[in-house]
Amino acid sequence: MKKSQYIAQTQAALEYYEKAHIILTDEEKARLEAADFGLGDWRKVGLQLLVYINTERVCAKEMVLLPGQTCPEHWHVGDETGPGKEETFRCRYGKVYLYVDGPGKKEDAQAVIPPSDVTVFHQIVLNPGEQHTIMPGTKHWFQSGPEGAVISEFSTKSTDETDAFTDKRIVRIPVIED
Amino acid sequence: MKKSQYIAQTQAALEYYEKAHIILTDEEKARLEAADFGLGDWRKVGLQLLVYINTERVCAKEMVLLPGQTCPEHWHVGDETGPGKEETFRCRYGKVYLYVDGPGKKEDAQAVIPPSDVTVFHQIVLNPGEQHTIMPGTKHWFQSGPEGAVISEFSTKSTDETDAFTDKRIVRIPVIED
Repeated sequence: MKKSQYIAQTQAALEYYEKAHIILTDEEKARLEAADFGLGDWRKVGLQLLVYINTERVCAKEMVLLPGQTCPEHWHVGDETGPGKEETFRCRYGKVYLYVDGPGKKEDAQAVIPPSDVTVFHQIVLNPGEQHTIMPGTKHWFQSGPEGAVISEFSTKSTDETDAFTDKRIVRIPVIED
Repeated sequence: MKKSQYIAQTQAALEYYEKAHIILTDEEKARLEAADFGLGDWRKVGLQLLVYINTERVCAKEMVLLPGQTCPEHWHVGDETGPGKEETFRCRYGKVYLYVDGPGKKEDAQAVIPPSDVTVFHQIVLNPGEQHTIMPGTKHWFQSGPEGAVISEFSTKSTDETDAFTDKRIVRIPVIED
């Protein structure tokens, strides 16, 4: 990831935290994370996030999706220490189209089918104040509506680097180049 | 707890969620919790809260302290299934005076000493966007400043009924009477 792209993603995200009235410290603003999942099309497939806390037992994040941006399909795998991550997404601002394992057809999805591979289409729409819990191993992807979205995530320990993605081209952890 | 008190506490709390721009669903507004810890002086010792999620592994709550209100000193004990609750408090609105085990004298506390027993005085002040993590077994109590406070809590499983309180008069789980 080019540094200029990192700056563009995180600066855009700051506007959405402001729109959602979510107050961040200067230290937090300086360590916002940007992901493009290695697909080179971050406005369509990408995510901006801030980790509030991530310990052996608990994690909380505040995520921003820019308008129409998609977090690509993935699931959380367990290891010898226990089951994978359990997470609750709570919409704070905008609208989220969340897709999980279950009944639901591609042609009924209200989201725009993203350029990354997706295979699950059970649709859950989250408006501000609405939330959904995703248990370990559940495939999921999500996209914001035209206003973007801010999503609080409450979860067990987060190990993004072990997430499994449907689209094998994906690289989760970006390397920022000058 | 009289039903009229429950209504007074929860209606007051709703104003603070609005001030903090935290959006709740109607279902959530209808199930806000109020605690007076059985001391009969809820404006001084009390708490209003909403549990977003509480599973075997993760819990998230949104808490309101009315101006100058105190959540009394307590700590989270473990059981045969594991250590006690680990929690992070993130101030979203107002100011929080948090006291935990550690160096710190009663006479230096900026909070008003509450009518419930307190024994720890290591002060941490949380302004909006600031947070602090409390590990299991750590005694703590907290009070809002004159503007009240809204606090997000990210934690492991919550079992309020097993909390240990310094003040032995305290009854954690209220019974609402007509």
